[in-house]
Amino acid sequence: MKVPEFQYQSPQQQKRAYSKEHSEMCRKIGVDAADPSSVVSTTVTGGCDKVDGEDLFLPPLNFAMVDNGVFRSGFPDSANFSFLQTLGLRSVICMCPEPYPETNMEFLKANGIKLYQFGIEGYKEPFVNIPEDTIREALKVILDVRNHPVLIHCKRGKHRTGCVVGCLRKLQKWCLTSVFDEYQRFAASKARVADQRFMELFDVSSLKH
Amino acid sequence: MKVPEFQYQSPQQQKRAYSKEHSEMCRKIGVDAADPSSVVSTTVTGGCDKVDGEDLFLPPLNFAMVDNGVFRSGFPDSANFSFLQTLGLRSVICMCPEPYPETNMEFLKANGIKLYQFGIEGYKEPFVNIPEDTIREALKVILDVRNHPVLIHCKRGKHRTGCVVGCLRKLQKWCLTSVFDEYQRFAASKARVADQRFMELFDVSSLKH
Repeated sequence: MKVPEFQYQSPQQQKRAYSKEHSEMCRKIGVDAADPSSVVSTTVTGGCDKVDGEDLFLPPLNFAMVDNGVFRSGFPDSANFSFLQTLGLRSVICMCPEPYPETNMEFLKANGIKLYQFGIEGYKEPFVNIPEDTIREALKVILDVRNHPVLIHCKRGKHRTGCVVGCLRKLQKWCLTSVFDEYQRFAASKARVADQRFMELFDVSSLKH
Repeated sequence: MKVPEFQYQSPQQQKRAYSKEHSEMCRKIGVDAADPSSVVSTTVTGGCDKVDGEDLFLPPLNFAMVDNGVFRSGFPDSANFSFLQTLGLRSVICMCPEPYPETNMEFLKANGIKLYQFGIEGYKEPFVNIPEDTIREALKVILDVRNHPVLIHCKRGKHRTGCVVGCLRKLQKWCLTSVFDEYQRFAASKARVADQRFMELFDVSSLKH
């Protein structure tokens, strides 16, 4: 295979490369693929900015890549759909308890993306109660590569998403300093001591294999 | 292929999976692989924290995944080496002009990692002069998948690295709002208007194919 000297992989190309590799891993699982015709129609309604005649992508608030096949963000809306399509998502994990918006449901359906909802109430300190079991169930979905690529999101991508990712980092054996550094990068001035205490105490041993 | 229900991929496993996919892309290029024996010996001297008898990884300051095969951080030191090994890096891009530290050079050599240095002086506003050509050369290295996985770093992973990543995002058609959002997440209170203006004006058209 000839590799050109400067090979920029567009998100679409990366999606294809990823899908090819991934389909091999998952070929006996039988996950439904997106219907290409509906993907195209969603692109039209997905919405993206146009600057100098060029379509631009608008990633959701606080969007970032966590690891291979794992992304995080705040709540996506229709302006973010065309960007999200470039990720070739297989699933979305929503950490909010409210019913998932109709527009978002349609986007997921049209693109063959499975929704996992692990509702945790947004809370204000000092009335804190992060349900450990819920975080653990979300982590199990993230650790199952059949769900990749997966997007984890809550409302602002700071606290609930931050706790899930922080617990994932513990499982990846990151030291707490680095876990907190990453958490604080997204939470910024809204960083919560209670969240950090939760991550510190979270026991990942049952999730190891 | 049977996929277990909860399959956690350790960084090493991900590295192997990545290498397998990548070796196919690069098999005609003939990039030298790291000598496994030297990798092991570097693990011993690489340094990592031990908590409750468990070795923990310490990613470099401001470490994050930018995209498939692309990472960013502040200047790594020996405490970060064992973590960096899990990334299976093929190259490192250093944006600082100072001679690369001997310890870091030894780590790169022992792990078959190529160093690209694009020295840009750290600067303080308002004495600003970001050399556009240097950023462009760094981007060419990043866009060449034969260099992946690649780590981009400067001193603190905020300004010089932030500008390189911001220009990469423009090439990926991110709108400026999202480019700046990401830049500011790392630069935090040290965010510089001049950097953002540089990213806004940077012309990516010559880098497209």
